[in-house]
Amino acid sequence: MPILKAAIIGGGHIADQNHIPALKSLPERVELIAVCSRDILKARALADKHAIPLAFDNAAEMFESENKPDMIINCTANNLHYPFTMQALENNCHVLCEKPPAMNAAQALEMADLAKERGKVLAYNFQLRHTPEYSLLKRFLENGRLGEVYHIKANFLRRRGIPSWGNFTNKSIQGGGALMDLGVHVLDLALGLLDYSEPDRLIANTYDFIGKAGGKGLMGSWDPEKFEVEDACFAHLSFPNNASITLSASFALNTKMQKNVNLEVFGTKAGAVLNPFSVFSEVDGELLDMEFPHLEEADIQLKNTIAFLNACDGKSSNICDATQGAILQKIVEAIYKSAEK
Amino acid sequence: MPILKAAIIGGGHIADQNHIPALKSLPERVELIAVCSRDILKARALADKHAIPLAFDNAAEMFESENKPDMIINCTANNLHYPFTMQALENNCHVLCEKPPAMNAAQALEMADLAKERGKVLAYNFQLRHTPEYSLLKRFLENGRLGEVYHIKANFLRRRGIPSWGNFTNKSIQGGGALMDLGVHVLDLALGLLDYSEPDRLIANTYDFIGKAGGKGLMGSWDPEKFEVEDACFAHLSFPNNASITLSASFALNTKMQKNVNLEVFGTKAGAVLNPFSVFSEVDGELLDMEFPHLEEADIQLKNTIAFLNACDGKSSNICDATQGAILQKIVEAIYKSAEK
Amino acid sequence: MPILKAAIIGGGHIADQNHIPALKSLPERVELIAVCSRDILKARALADKHAIPLAFDNAAEMFESENKPDMIINCTANNLHYPFTMQALENNCHVLCEKPPAMNAAQALEMADLAKERGKVLAYNFQLRHTPEYSLLKRFLENGRLGEVYHIKANFLRRRGIPSWGNFTNKSIQGGGALMDLGVHVLDLALGLLDYSEPDRLIANTYDFIGKAGGKGLMGSWDPEKFEVEDACFAHLSFPNNASITLSASFALNTKMQKNVNLEVFGTKAGAVLNPFSVFSEVDGELLDMEFPHLEEADIQLKNTIAFLNACDGKSSNICDATQGAILQKIVEAIYKSAEK
Amino acid sequence: MPILKAAIIGGGHIADQNHIPALKSLPERVELIAVCSRDILKARALADKHAIPLAFDNAAEMFESENKPDMIINCTANNLHYPFTMQALENNCHVLCEKPPAMNAAQALEMADLAKERGKVLAYNFQLRHTPEYSLLKRFLENGRLGEVYHIKANFLRRRGIPSWGNFTNKSIQGGGALMDLGVHVLDLALGLLDYSEPDRLIANTYDFIGKAGGKGLMGSWDPEKFEVEDACFAHLSFPNNASITLSASFALNTKMQKNVNLEVFGTKAGAVLNPFSVFSEVDGELLDMEFPHLEEADIQLKNTIAFLNACDGKSSNICDATQGAILQKIVEAIYKSAEK
Amino acid sequence: MPILKAAIIGGGHIADQNHIPALKSLPERVELIAVCSRDILKARALADKHAIPLAFDNAAEMFESENKPDMIINCTANNLHYPFTMQALENNCHVLCEKPPAMNAAQALEMADLAKERGKVLAYNFQLRHTPEYSLLKRFLENGRLGEVYHIKANFLRRRGIPSWGNFTNKSIQGGGALMDLGVHVLDLALGLLDYSEPDRLIANTYDFIGKAGGKGLMGSWDPEKFEVEDACFAHLSFPNNASITLSASFALNTKMQKNVNLEVFGTKAGAVLNPFSVFSEVDGELLDMEFPHLEEADIQLKNTIAFLNACDGKSSNICDATQGAILQKIVEAIYKSAEK
Amino acid sequence: MPILKAAIIGGGHIADQNHIPALKSLPERVELIAVCSRDILKARALADKHAIPLAFDNAAEMFESENKPDMIINCTANNLHYPFTMQALENNCHVLCEKPPAMNAAQALEMADLAKERGKVLAYNFQLRHTPEYSLLKRFLENGRLGEVYHIKANFLRRRGIPSWGNFTNKSIQGGGALMDLGVHVLDLALGLLDYSEPDRLIANTYDFIGKAGGKGLMGSWDPEKFEVEDACFAHLSFPNNASITLSASFALNTKMQKNVNLEVFGTKAGAVLNPFSVFSEVDGELLDMEFPHLEEADIQLKNTIAFLNACDGKSSNICDATQGAILQKIVEAIYKSAEK
Repeated sequence: MPILKAAIIGGGHIADQNHIPALKSLPERVELIAVCSRDILKARALADKHAIPLAFDNAAEMFESENKPDMIINCTANNLHYPFTMQALENNCHVLCEKPPAMNAAQALEMADLAKERGKVLAYNFQLRHTPEYSLLKRFLENGRLGEVYHIKANFLRRRGIPSWGNFTNKSIQGGGALMDLGVHVLDLALGLLDYSEPDRLIANTYDFIGKAGGKGLMGSWDPEKFEVEDACFAHLSFPNNASITLSASFALNTKMQKNVNLEVFGTKAGAVLNPFSVFSEVDGELLDMEFPHLEEADIQLKNTIAFLNACDGKSSNICDATQGAILQKIVEAIYKSAEK
Repeated sequence: MPILKAAIIGGGHIADQNHIPALKSLPERVELIAVCSRDILKARALADKHAIPLAFDNAAEMFESENKPDMIINCTANNLHYPFTMQALENNCHVLCEKPPAMNAAQALEMADLAKERGKVLAYNFQLRHTPEYSLLKRFLENGRLGEVYHIKANFLRRRGIPSWGNFTNKSIQGGGALMDLGVHVLDLALGLLDYSEPDRLIANTYDFIGKAGGKGLMGSWDPEKFEVEDACFAHLSFPNNASITLSASFALNTKMQKNVNLEVFGTKAGAVLNPFSVFSEVDGELLDMEFPHLEEADIQLKNTIAFLNACDGKSSNICDATQGAILQKIVEAIYKSAEK
Repeated sequence: MPILKAAIIGGGHIADQNHIPALKSLPERVELIAVCSRDILKARALADKHAIPLAFDNAAEMFESENKPDMIINCTANNLHYPFTMQALENNCHVLCEKPPAMNAAQALEMADLAKERGKVLAYNFQLRHTPEYSLLKRFLENGRLGEVYHIKANFLRRRGIPSWGNFTNKSIQGGGALMDLGVHVLDLALGLLDYSEPDRLIANTYDFIGKAGGKGLMGSWDPEKFEVEDACFAHLSFPNNASITLSASFALNTKMQKNVNLEVFGTKAGAVLNPFSVFSEVDGELLDMEFPHLEEADIQLKNTIAFLNACDGKSSNICDATQGAILQKIVEAIYKSAEK
Repeated sequence: MPILKAAIIGGGHIADQNHIPALKSLPERVELIAVCSRDILKARALADKHAIPLAFDNAAEMFESENKPDMIINCTANNLHYPFTMQALENNCHVLCEKPPAMNAAQALEMADLAKERGKVLAYNFQLRHTPEYSLLKRFLENGRLGEVYHIKANFLRRRGIPSWGNFTNKSIQGGGALMDLGVHVLDLALGLLDYSEPDRLIANTYDFIGKAGGKGLMGSWDPEKFEVEDACFAHLSFPNNASITLSASFALNTKMQKNVNLEVFGTKAGAVLNPFSVFSEVDGELLDMEFPHLEEADIQLKNTIAFLNACDGKSSNICDATQGAILQKIVEAIYKSAEK
Repeated sequence: MPILKAAIIGGGHIADQNHIPALKSLPERVELIAVCSRDILKARALADKHAIPLAFDNAAEMFESENKPDMIINCTANNLHYPFTMQALENNCHVLCEKPPAMNAAQALEMADLAKERGKVLAYNFQLRHTPEYSLLKRFLENGRLGEVYHIKANFLRRRGIPSWGNFTNKSIQGGGALMDLGVHVLDLALGLLDYSEPDRLIANTYDFIGKAGGKGLMGSWDPEKFEVEDACFAHLSFPNNASITLSASFALNTKMQKNVNLEVFGTKAGAVLNPFSVFSEVDGELLDMEFPHLEEADIQLKNTIAFLNACDGKSSNICDATQGAILQKIVEAIYKSAEK
Repeated sequence: MPILKAAIIGGGHIADQNHIPALKSLPERVELIAVCSRDILKARALADKHAIPLAFDNAAEMFESENKPDMIINCTANNLHYPFTMQALENNCHVLCEKPPAMNAAQALEMADLAKERGKVLAYNFQLRHTPEYSLLKRFLENGRLGEVYHIKANFLRRRGIPSWGNFTNKSIQGGGALMDLGVHVLDLALGLLDYSEPDRLIANTYDFIGKAGGKGLMGSWDPEKFEVEDACFAHLSFPNNASITLSASFALNTKMQKNVNLEVFGTKAGAVLNPFSVFSEVDGELLDMEFPHLEEADIQLKNTIAFLNACDGKSSNICDATQGAILQKIVEAIYKSAEK
């Protein structure tokens, strides 16, 4: 297999801490050749820090340069996922794009279509798929230990976790709040247990009481005046096969735990909780609780990067691909629409 | 105040263990004069056990007797709530009827209309309203400590709790399963926090996988062949003021706890969990968890009986009255309809 | 099936509290007709208390009486297990004899031979076989979930539990101490997992330091001067198929727990602990701990009495029969012999 | 006292991490002059890393060199303990040899004889003797607080701890499995409480089911095809004074804890558990549990190295000397022989 | 020994529940012949309930009757301890008087003087002296295990425990509040560890904030208007040998525990906490925590009654005698005086 | 605001680890220009380590140098607090002096008078005032949530914490023991809740049993021969408004916890415990326990340094100023005097 040439677009924290270290640890598969950021100083600093040869402040220039990348990691703000991903695909690059896929369903669909047309891999960085707990949950599902899954409660709840950095409360840049930033993670996990099918019915409510009122911040202090997104979102999704998902996401909610990221999965043969992974079932005529005393920690970004590279090499792998991303974005849009009613 | 003459219709366990002891402990307010049951031997035995003078196997006869009752406790099967309550109202009796109100919304509405017409009190026996935890929750709400409540998760979940006695799995007698028998309790509690307003949107799913497949029973063994109702129900209700409720009820579900009856309440100023009652809020700039080390146990049936008697005496009191019962039954019907789609 | 006529020999606590209530609760299968005790007043009092028609102070007289018993419950002291059981068998009675089977291996063998010759059921009252934990352990073993069991640690340990009543420290009456009274229970359970095969090698040590020195008593105070038996016994048994058992029993031992009755079972596929019942294994490539949140309590004496009656009716059932009792007594004797070296 | 010149034979992990740091921290007592390893590059690298002047790939050469060592640390594989220790003693060096002493009893005896003949110290590196818990246990024993110790349960159990590195599953190099590698540690501790007397009776069983079947590895994955040693060993030892030891060791066993290294010690006055150190006894007529809230952590390798150096200086010290090592190896051999029956 | 004839003065709860059952269980030592209460109906009812022959409403009459008592149990209100005890002593009766001894120091001294003069036993019913924890604490002290005790923290604290029955908030009847009713118990225990010596210095503060403000009552609701005593008392006592006691008592205090009755004892060799009894010391050079896994429950009233009877029989016994009672009352008075400053 | 020039007097651990890092992190407010220590080598080394330009072994010289400091951090031994602080004030420097203020009340008063006379800030380094728990406690007090505080238990207890370094057991250098070194911290906190008023009555006892007897040391081993101070101090303080404090401090005490630094505060509306911060009160008619799930850790030295600098800038700030320090030292002296009686 040839070594792919990779470039980073977007010079923020997630590039520095997650994507670049993952790529750098795979020198036999990928070579990091460039960083591109609106701010050339930032691009240069990041490139220098990680010994990456090139720095750009203009993506077009990068794509036209001699040492053109084969793949792009799109780490830009949500509202730039669409333009830079489209530009990369048009330049025949594979793209690993940060989540959420896009600002709306139409963009995500267009991105999926172009990826298909160009025969390139487009994937979204839902790295929670690679936790040992979710991997084991999937194995249980695939081995038939859960029977058929018919209801899932998917939660990504923070008590006071509105980030004070970045643009997390700015609707025109982020496209949304708790659902767009947090809820999509557990929605992706839940859909992954239902063959990523599309719901035929859904209902949702969103709120912004705490965000707009202000309060104690556990991820820095936010400005209630500039809070434009939902701080909490609750939705119920029903699927053609009658399975259902209850989705709850919050930046701020008056609840006990500071952070609660979890799935509760109910199957015909057994139920499961993701964290800590445990299974509730019957055996030999008695109720059974299963616990797993030794699940190894995993570098979930590294595992997702490898899954993406495997896809680029034409292998099947566990990524959120362009098609799934479009379905997820369509659901997100439907949730927001339902909540407006 | 005159002492009311009371009669029991339906000679089962709930009459014997709950209603009769409560009434007997209030001799200054009520006199138990008769028991009526289809089976005269059962009626007689119950009457003898509790030193009640009269026993009937025919309600009409009872209403026509000289020593006519002023109030009726309707402890019959769900499908008999409507006919006996109607008959009692027509005979100008107050009625305390077991939950759920009726088999469908039309019946409950009719019952409410007749009660109004006759100027009699009709109430449903939702006694969980009188737990010290719910009473304190209401005080917190009324004193403004929660702010405005905008989302409630209401759960009445059993892991393997399909009763093997009675008719709990028979649809034509019960009208439904986990929702009709268990879910209505927490739905009543949740609605009580939202001024018993009616949802303008809802969606629901119901299931019967475990009930129809069979398994370990913790409330006796049930016959999967005769399981005709839902073993689990999940619904999302949205209200005109944008508040929402997530309702979950089960007779059987692959979950950790054997029994989980709880509300999680999210308000603009504070959130609360019902059991054990605790509140999550902020004070003096810090996150605050409130716990209550000494809540006295209450005889909730006695409290509900007293509330009903107070209503009969024309005092305002915390009962689920005929109007609320009709709203609740309407929601239940809507949930079942949504689940059929 | 005809109703068996039963008589009790030995009028002590275990007859009064365990055997008679169990028999009395099975009127459709057994009729208690007589109590026999050396002390006629005691026999009479016990008979009166439980409404049993006849009382004897002479077993021979009882066997010769008109209303002769079909079965005997032998509740006498250890040194009388042999003579009364032999007498009962000779009189063509089935016998349920208290544990241990006898004072030595020769007696137990003779008892087994006579039972066989007469075609009568002789069983020993090892009622711990019927705990829900052991029943589930057996089901796991039979369903292959443990694989092949190759090592068992069997413990019946008390920190300071030398009974101050009865004859527990008198060797000529009891035949031994902690092993004879307590260890035999868990030895029976362990052998039950190994097809009750006989060990081909064993080694043991017994001690009486604390018994002879005296100390705090948690089951009354004992007299160190009259302490003639072992207060602790440790043995290792090796079986022809290379399985092994480590057996530990104590009346008194300087250990943390007041009482510790347990098996640890090690199989090729899984291991198990009896109390609380839990299983340690692997599933889907991960280590698995299994717990059982709802095991119902059982009336283990009643279950053993029923098992005995089933055997009398010619059905196969889970009892410690005469053959097993002889094997167990042979092992006990071999342990004491090894400890003398 | 003169400073001893020390050389390391065997350039593996235990030399690098344990022995060299301990020796290096004692410059006033010992000077590390050489490393000897079959692989000269490895020897050189280790010497350079720790600033040790000389590196050899031939022990004979080292002993003949001008700057000849006074003492040897033998960190080689089990099957090389004998030849290199013999060679070192013949060259008049003191030897601190890794455990187990040798491949069999004859070797260990020969080593002890030669050490005696040459007047040199030969000790085995059983460093668990120096944990604060065992030191305190010994003080309790010596101060008479336990009375006479008559039974010990000694466990070194791993659930899935077959090392994937080194030669731990190779019988011709290791001489054995769980007993040889792990069990010897707790056997040494237990013997140390019984004046290192020799058992006059013993019985044992060994198993290799899990090792040969494969499974989840917590210390890397092992190859079941190449698993030649026992994965579990259970033995009972009886001593001339009637004391007894139950020894359990495993590389792999279906048990709850990942790792369980412990002694339970039963004495006439008190019992003790090693980890966490606690004592069970009586005081002023009541049962007493003793706990020790502050035991300082110890560098157990450093303490054993100092003990060895003290012995070289002719002082009495707490080491496993050549005589004890020979006794221990004799027991190990007897256990394996018993298990073959 | 002759059987003593006993009479009860004061027909309340403590007579009915504590003293009479204790006396009745000792028929070989004491015969209950009379009950005396201001209310003859109450006296009669209590006498009948317990099969006591005589009932009086006039103590003088009782003392003049033919069947005159030898001993009196004085169960009257605090302000009647003095007159009835004096009258009983004048009639040559032994007296077991409820605590506190009297309303003030002068009364208690006079009572002690008269008892001495008449040669009769006067004791106060401080039954907490007989808990197994305090008994063991005393044994530890006497056996020298604590060394010299130099500081004691004595607490009897209730969070919201103002009794709504009796006269607990009435100063003219009770003489005081939390100190008089609760604090005296732990003061007696603490003094018992210091040879009941008298403090040469003390300082105290008392409060009545919560009692006068009202609040949640856990022992019924009290009337803040009628709250005349202290709800909390804190004092420091210093003794001639430089030992010291910190005493804290409360009916109502904003503290975590509902009830906290405890001593913390600091000695030169060891410290102890009373509940649960534990000792903190050193052994063999390490810090030691001692716990006692099996302290039997005791009937502390029965034990105190026996101790009183032993004293009447001229045996030494662990009672709070007249002299100690006078010292205690003197300290209580000094505390109240100090608090007034 | 001008940048203040600061100098350190006393080159020990507390200067190196606490004060210099705090000052260095505030370059916009303060410039560290000199270190002064009796030992010029120590002064030089510390100055070099932290890049401080000047080093002196003579304070007079420093004050006369050209680059004269504006403020002094006095980190000397207790007996030097007075002379160096006086010298600094005379040289018109602000002074942040380590605790305790001085050796006796007279010194502290003189220091306060001179500070006032020169118009300079003198503060003592009681940094525990800035823990998030105490800050929140103060906010609760100020917001009226506790009502009026009337009793405080203030503890700084170590089980075996006599420092083996420094001069902690030397009376002529330290002025005292557990009270002087530890107790003053919690006394300062307690006084801070009572408007730093002066007690009008107090009583105390001090002890040195363990210090003089020796024992296990958890902060190194101390020499009992050289132990000249109290190892424990217990005092009761009563204030003009009737509030009271119970103060307990120990270097060594036979108690369970190794270290126990805490306040229990009792107010008319609520009580509080400092660590972990929790509040006990009533709400809506029920008992309430308040917990605070997220208190951020604070750099308490930095916060106290900033508070001192703010005071130098004329702003009000939370420091223990010269007046408060004099009150505290007066109380300490009174405690020692009381204990001598």
